[in-house]
Amino acid sequence: MRYELYYWTGIQGRGEFVRLALEDAGAEYIDVAREKGDEAIMPFLRGQQPGAQPFAPPFLRAGRQVIAQTANILGFLAPRHGLVPASAASQTYALQLQLTITDIVAEAHDTHHPVAVEKYYEDQRPEARKRSASFREERIPKFLGYFEQILENNDGRHALGRRNSYVDLSLFQLMAGLEYAFPRTMKRLQRRTTRLRALRERVAERPRIAAYLASPRRLAFNEDGIFRHYPELDEA
Amino acid sequence: MRYELYYWTGIQGRGEFVRLALEDAGAEYIDVAREKGDEAIMPFLRGQQPGAQPFAPPFLRAGRQVIAQTANILGFLAPRHGLVPASAASQTYALQLQLTITDIVAEAHDTHHPVAVEKYYEDQRPEARKRSASFREERIPKFLGYFEQILENNDGRHALGRRNSYVDLSLFQLMAGLEYAFPRTMKRLQRRTTRLRALRERVAERPRIAAYLASPRRLAFNEDGIFRHYPELDEA
Repeated sequence: MRYELYYWTGIQGRGEFVRLALEDAGAEYIDVAREKGDEAIMPFLRGQQPGAQPFAPPFLRAGRQVIAQTANILGFLAPRHGLVPASAASQTYALQLQLTITDIVAEAHDTHHPVAVEKYYEDQRPEARKRSASFREERIPKFLGYFEQILENNDGRHALGRRNSYVDLSLFQLMAGLEYAFPRTMKRLQRRTTRLRALRERVAERPRIAAYLASPRRLAFNEDGIFRHYPELDEA
Repeated sequence: MRYELYYWTGIQGRGEFVRLALEDAGAEYIDVAREKGDEAIMPFLRGQQPGAQPFAPPFLRAGRQVIAQTANILGFLAPRHGLVPASAASQTYALQLQLTITDIVAEAHDTHHPVAVEKYYEDQRPEARKRSASFREERIPKFLGYFEQILENNDGRHALGRRNSYVDLSLFQLMAGLEYAFPRTMKRLQRRTTRLRALRERVAERPRIAAYLASPRRLAFNEDGIFRHYPELDEA
């Protein structure tokens, strides 16, 4: 099966969580918009293609099936590629964890877009400062504290089971994104995120992930994506 | 199987999407916090109970399994109670739609909490006005336009398949919540939401749903929940 991934060009964004799973699995896939441009995405959003109509990218074409919503794509791919334990209960639990990652990712986005997703950051800077203060002081510690506890109550190294899963890959991406966007905050939280930081290092060293990160397929973080480094939004 | 639902007392909130599925299925369940108080929730959040540790309510206890994240709970319950078609592809599609409902529900919440979830609405009123304007003018039409198209491209009456599913129940709740919170906006959009409004009426007339809505188990919308009616946040 050669998958087709559809996601906006130029940013890691939510598509990156899917890319990491495809790359770690060694799956064959085309990153369609990078080859054909963002316009390749539009017919799907307009309902002009067979298969499920997505509200937004990322979406994945797998044969005749079109699948949207990041966590849902991962829940679909994972059992096909050994990225989640086989039991139904484990897959339900993995999705619960992934959806909690979805929640903090959405909140990370809203730090630079607190009042209007369709406007520029520059049009909502005072509100972004307020939202970011809450995110740094309340939300990051709460979410990362939760995931630290999840790791600790498992084997200390994996979100679930005894092997790498798509949730571990997504935690890697979450940590990488937060460290890019809020380096001073994340430095302050170092001692409270030891397991997550160690997980991040281990995932980065997985052979296929290491090869991916060193390849041109891995875009750099930038200020068009979800995790943006605006120094004025980080702590002083 | 007698389920245990855990959700904050006093509000419909995200728990209501689960309640509607349990009620429509005629499933046996206890709404635990309503019987024992919100403190019954806390040991789960602290990881002091067996089963998956939730980040937040709602969560469901089903035998020894604990399941959190609204869409995930619904994806678990639905095939057990005929609330989704049997095929794996249908269940993936249903979850995609439900996660898109999750997205607009989160945005509805952020209209009254645009800068800090842990502060009161009264502490973020100017920002709430801005966020609400964007939500009313850009986001509600975009999301509801999408779901109208989903209905139209199916049979006009159901989100997927030819029968009621958990997604239909959630669309009912979404419409009810938006009409409570933004009555003037929703009136303006009446002609663009004919299928969603008809679906809402049909769901409300389903015997078990009608009985539920008339019972004391259905709380009224209020200004502690997700869908809040602040007239200053609706259009003029």
